[in-house]
Amino acid sequence: MKSFSIVLSRLLVILFISFLGCKNETSKDPTTKEAVEVLKDFTQYVNPFIGTSNFGTTNPGPIAVRGMANVSPFNVAGSQNLPLEKDSRWLSTPYINENPFLMGFSHVNLSGVGCPELGVILAMPTTGNLETNHLKYGSTYSEENATVGYYTNKIDKYNVKVEATATTRVGVSKYHFPAGDANILLNLGLGLTNEEGAMVKVVSPTEIEGMRSVGSFCYYKPEEAYPVYFVVRFSKPADKFGIWKKPRNYKGVEADWMTYNDETRIKENYTKEVVGDSIGAFMRYKFDKPSTVEMKIGVSYVSIENARENLEKETASKSFDDILTDAKKEWNTYLSRIEVEGGTADDKTIFYTALYHTLIHPNTLNDFNGEYPKMKTRETLKTDGTRYTVFSLWDTYRNLHQLMSLVYPKQQSNMIKSMLQIYDESGWLPKWELNATETTTMVGDPAGIIIADTYLKGIQDFDVDKAYEAMKKSATQLENNALRPGIKDYIEKGYLTTTTVHSGSVSTTQEYNISDFAIAQLAKALDKKDDYNTFSERAISYRKLFDKEFNLLRPKNDDGSWVTPYNPEAGANFEKNLGFIEGNAWQYTFMVAHDTKGLIELMGGETPFVNRLEDVFEKNQFDMANEPDINYPFLFNHIKGQEYKTGLKVNELLKQHFKNTPDGLPGNDDTGTMSAWAVFSMIGIYPVSPAEPNYALFTPVFDKITIHLDKNYYKNNELILSKKSTQEGIEIKVNTEVFDKHFISHETLTN
Amino acid sequence: MKSFSIVLSRLLVILFISFLGCKNETSKDPTTKEAVEVLKDFTQYVNPFIGTSNFGTTNPGPIAVRGMANVSPFNVAGSQNLPLEKDSRWLSTPYINENPFLMGFSHVNLSGVGCPELGVILAMPTTGNLETNHLKYGSTYSEENATVGYYTNKIDKYNVKVEATATTRVGVSKYHFPAGDANILLNLGLGLTNEEGAMVKVVSPTEIEGMRSVGSFCYYKPEEAYPVYFVVRFSKPADKFGIWKKPRNYKGVEADWMTYNDETRIKENYTKEVVGDSIGAFMRYKFDKPSTVEMKIGVSYVSIENARENLEKETASKSFDDILTDAKKEWNTYLSRIEVEGGTADDKTIFYTALYHTLIHPNTLNDFNGEYPKMKTRETLKTDGTRYTVFSLWDTYRNLHQLMSLVYPKQQSNMIKSMLQIYDESGWLPKWELNATETTTMVGDPAGIIIADTYLKGIQDFDVDKAYEAMKKSATQLENNALRPGIKDYIEKGYLTTTTVHSGSVSTTQEYNISDFAIAQLAKALDKKDDYNTFSERAISYRKLFDKEFNLLRPKNDDGSWVTPYNPEAGANFEKNLGFIEGNAWQYTFMVAHDTKGLIELMGGETPFVNRLEDVFEKNQFDMANEPDINYPFLFNHIKGQEYKTGLKVNELLKQHFKNTPDGLPGNDDTGTMSAWAVFSMIGIYPVSPAEPNYALFTPVFDKITIHLDKNYYKNNELILSKKSTQEGIEIKVNTEVFDKHFISHETLTN
Repeated sequence: MKSFSIVLSRLLVILFISFLGCKNETSKDPTTKEAVEVLKDFTQYVNPFIGTSNFGTTNPGPIAVRGMANVSPFNVAGSQNLPLEKDSRWLSTPYINENPFLMGFSHVNLSGVGCPELGVILAMPTTGNLETNHLKYGSTYSEENATVGYYTNKIDKYNVKVEATATTRVGVSKYHFPAGDANILLNLGLGLTNEEGAMVKVVSPTEIEGMRSVGSFCYYKPEEAYPVYFVVRFSKPADKFGIWKKPRNYKGVEADWMTYNDETRIKENYTKEVVGDSIGAFMRYKFDKPSTVEMKIGVSYVSIENARENLEKETASKSFDDILTDAKKEWNTYLSRIEVEGGTADDKTIFYTALYHTLIHPNTLNDFNGEYPKMKTRETLKTDGTRYTVFSLWDTYRNLHQLMSLVYPKQQSNMIKSMLQIYDESGWLPKWELNATETTTMVGDPAGIIIADTYLKGIQDFDVDKAYEAMKKSATQLENNALRPGIKDYIEKGYLTTTTVHSGSVSTTQEYNISDFAIAQLAKALDKKDDYNTFSERAISYRKLFDKEFNLLRPKNDDGSWVTPYNPEAGANFEKNLGFIEGNAWQYTFMVAHDTKGLIELMGGETPFVNRLEDVFEKNQFDMANEPDINYPFLFNHIKGQEYKTGLKVNELLKQHFKNTPDGLPGNDDTGTMSAWAVFSMIGIYPVSPAEPNYALFTPVFDKITIHLDKNYYKNNELILSKKSTQEGIEIKVNTEVFDKHFISHETLTN
Repeated sequence: MKSFSIVLSRLLVILFISFLGCKNETSKDPTTKEAVEVLKDFTQYVNPFIGTSNFGTTNPGPIAVRGMANVSPFNVAGSQNLPLEKDSRWLSTPYINENPFLMGFSHVNLSGVGCPELGVILAMPTTGNLETNHLKYGSTYSEENATVGYYTNKIDKYNVKVEATATTRVGVSKYHFPAGDANILLNLGLGLTNEEGAMVKVVSPTEIEGMRSVGSFCYYKPEEAYPVYFVVRFSKPADKFGIWKKPRNYKGVEADWMTYNDETRIKENYTKEVVGDSIGAFMRYKFDKPSTVEMKIGVSYVSIENARENLEKETASKSFDDILTDAKKEWNTYLSRIEVEGGTADDKTIFYTALYHTLIHPNTLNDFNGEYPKMKTRETLKTDGTRYTVFSLWDTYRNLHQLMSLVYPKQQSNMIKSMLQIYDESGWLPKWELNATETTTMVGDPAGIIIADTYLKGIQDFDVDKAYEAMKKSATQLENNALRPGIKDYIEKGYLTTTTVHSGSVSTTQEYNISDFAIAQLAKALDKKDDYNTFSERAISYRKLFDKEFNLLRPKNDDGSWVTPYNPEAGANFEKNLGFIEGNAWQYTFMVAHDTKGLIELMGGETPFVNRLEDVFEKNQFDMANEPDINYPFLFNHIKGQEYKTGLKVNELLKQHFKNTPDGLPGNDDTGTMSAWAVFSMIGIYPVSPAEPNYALFTPVFDKITIHLDKNYYKNNELILSKKSTQEGIEIKVNTEVFDKHFISHETLTN
């Protein structure tokens, strides 16, 4: 298959060049003569609008694979966008599909998260007189379209067509202005983040540089707010340039003397640094005929110099069209690692868009030169590989990293290495790391679960001794434990109590159990028998919270008594709950996949277990939008004769929650976790128990799935999953063999 | 005298080395063997506390001759300093002698101005726990003392002794901490300026860098706010460091989610840029015994790099004591240019302190490498000489520049060159230039008056053609005239009307008259006869505003009628007035020194003129604290038989308003104008009519005054003025000759 791959990548050049209507000089390259096979453009199956409504919190703007930069339309400010307006309610995305009013394009964004953050460095083209107030310069938009790495719309008020694309660290836009006065505004006040403060400096008529403060994800850790640096380059020198600043509204005697109080100040032709909360820069043009301006915004979390280098190294003399071609090519290289046959057109779109979503976060933190900020202090460090960031691990430990291990093991390996860098720098593995800050969002100690899972799948080119040391540290340090609050009670009693933590005592106990199970599994592989025994025992301590009365988990008080009265339904819909985090007893009780056998016993055998599991769905307690219960459907595979229910449930859930529409995700994509669920579910395997190199096997959506495996990690070149209807029902093949078991090991799948 | 000067400067080295108790290794220098004459330390006669009360708005902190940096104690914030507290009233100084509560030391300050500005980059030593709120960390202080280039006090709350000195661009402090926890705070929120916004970054445990926004002098031109950059170096590496930021107090739904709203955030060991309105950095030490830390703060208006270079080039490896020695030496070099004999000890102190005050502003704007910001846009330019700034020309055109021309002609020449640079950069000569912004404070077109005065005194090493062109531009451009609003009416009618300007129509007419007189005088020198005639005629147009009814000037309406009813007393004490700026008819009518003969005629002869002039004093209409009337006392010299009154009045005013006490200035020093008045008045000459190279001559305070003249500009090495009591009265000698006239030309004085 190797030669095929080479042909494939060469052919792509031709494909996209013609796709974009460029001159096909490249086809003169003699090497392309090998290109004979049919080439697939998988990017055509991506609909970047999926997840941009129904709180999916993805955005349709262009981004490179795991890019640092992302050009998202920003339409969540201003009364025109009520009720989905960022200052009137909790809102965690720069773009919502149904919102009508656009304020510009933000250049660093998070995808599929539940807290407002980033959404800054906003650019906006306008025409006519200079207006710097976004509530006034905003506009409706139309003719919106998006494909992988490309977004376009028309800004109605100014009749300006916008096109955007991106490289890893550079957002690139092309503004089509009508004749007349044209303005490009760079607004550093407006943003989705809770943080304020920026610096901007016009370097020349073609360049602006600066920084914007961001931070306080979920309103946590405001003291760790940090800068994102940028350099903006314009293809045409501005006729006029300048900055604006709107200071705070002064009160008291001083206000009496200020004739200019509460007014925006414009500084034309000003070339020094300006700082403030509400500032921006502008470039102005006078066009005697319709004209385009291309704008490149390089970003960095290290320095302005690095932002400039990123811009130069990644986009150099490339035009917008060159960059777009490259972006599409890169995406196809990744998307084509899984080829599917069969299914409807919508199925393919849902699938490849989901795969696309899993390739956004974790994303690149390091600059082109390898530099990245150290955790917390932000000293400059350097990495050889990629330093990944945006580790929303409470979400992604469940399936996203398992997908990476199978399809993109090199990336997964680098993600583990990034986690170990974080450990080196901060003394702790990440929990919810964001741009070199640990936000401490959610509960549990998830990094070790991913490390064990990855190692046990044969991806072992990282320092496993250090990893093991890091995992044991958070599992054993009793005082000032950054990852496991309540660890003393957990070790002594086997569980957290309602006194140990304000909420989520049961959930957190379960999370620690899973982490300890992961340590045990890794200990076994590393031949550390004592640890294996200790942590295996710890890993099932949740059993002490199992209440026979309800056949569900139930929180306990400090004295060991049950919390009374007890309503297992309490805590759904994200209400605060003594025992559970973002869920209730129904949504958590089965979240012990590593000990499903134990749970079956606790519940009194397979029948009560299956009944209780079906109750979850029938009592409408299943929540597709939240992580704790998303592996429930696959648990039917454990019970002989009930396995068929897995496929049924999964199909039902796919149909209900995953659609080729903006509201086609069940809720927050959770940095790709929901999408990873869809990817696995549609190809008929699911990693039901993290840190166990096993998959539940069930009927896929597609007739045939070919996964091109990475030869550096796996023996086989490819893995083919296929289904065929036979007289006895549906026959599933793994590669060429019919497979009739309900679980399949990673080893079997890949080697 | 040349050889004497050389000896003098060599001797100074010895003097100050012994003065400071340093090792006198320098005395081994063989060249010092020449040192035999008695050396005078003129710095002993400077009391830096003069003018620090009674709204003198000087400060006692160390500054080099025309220094950019100045370490001023800052005691004008907080309720402890009420009623003289900066946020509760108009206050234009960082320090007031009677205020008890200290918040730190600001490193760029203005001296003797009437509007709040600068007073930023505040450093404060504290002990114990870190407290970043200046309202909490402030303290009373004691053991305060100041000499030229040196200030010390004890911060009571922390028992920390502070010493401070300065080079041209670097403020240097020495903190004597007791054993225990010690902190050095760098507060970038607090300041005297109306502007907010700063950036700070801890570079290492011994260095901090950043910038602070300043601007809006007198609440004018907020759009021209600009940055001052700084680099701070500490002699000892901090054990801990960090920054703080207090964001704005959020309102609305967002505030509900912010558990940290309205709270200061501390970032320990953080090494990236932080921006905001209320931010600061700190260095922390743990001393096991009493210890000192020396801190150097280099400043620049161009860049952080230049601030660092300024710091390195000016202070390099020098200790606090080295720098202090150099500072004293430099000051003595300048102060010793005028030697006085006779008079009381207080007289000498009043005199040398006044001379010291005239050597603070205009001050240095350019960096050590010659770079300075261009007017308004602040692009970086480079100068060969010194680019001076803080041109409060409405004040200083009256006497300060005349003093510079006589005693420090090289500096005066550079000041003219700076004015021409400003013209080159902005298209206009300065009016009230401050750090490369034209604040447009006050009225008139004063730069040309100074240029003509300087040129006519033989200081001609500047581009007089360009200067003349610049002067004519503001005198003739009818539209968009940045310096002379109302010029059309002025040229057509001969005066501004109450319709032309909101206030000060008469004052402004007079100012334009004086400027036109200056143009005429320069035209004459340059042999431009037509211009001479035109501008000579224009220069007396004020006569049209002379009202015989009152024998005073009176504003006119647009139709040429007098403003009626008319109360000539209105407008005193800075009340707004249709006809006059900061004054009334009494304080302005005689401000036509270039046409005193004409005024005498208008008033009906010498007797009514003298009567009216005496009325000013008798009716208590004379204001020593404001410029328009400060040359009134010298006008008696014009009237035969009345000349003796000049000396009497001057002596009376000196005694009443100039004292060796903190309230020893009549009001704002006006960047040295009041002090220049005292210097001239005490040595018995006064430049009564700007742009006329003449001085009124009268009895000096001192018996003998020796002015060491600059051989590059004047034929004589020195000018000696002396008085001797004889039987006929007091005999005044100029050099060796008895002089019995009442005016003396600059030519006669110097050559």
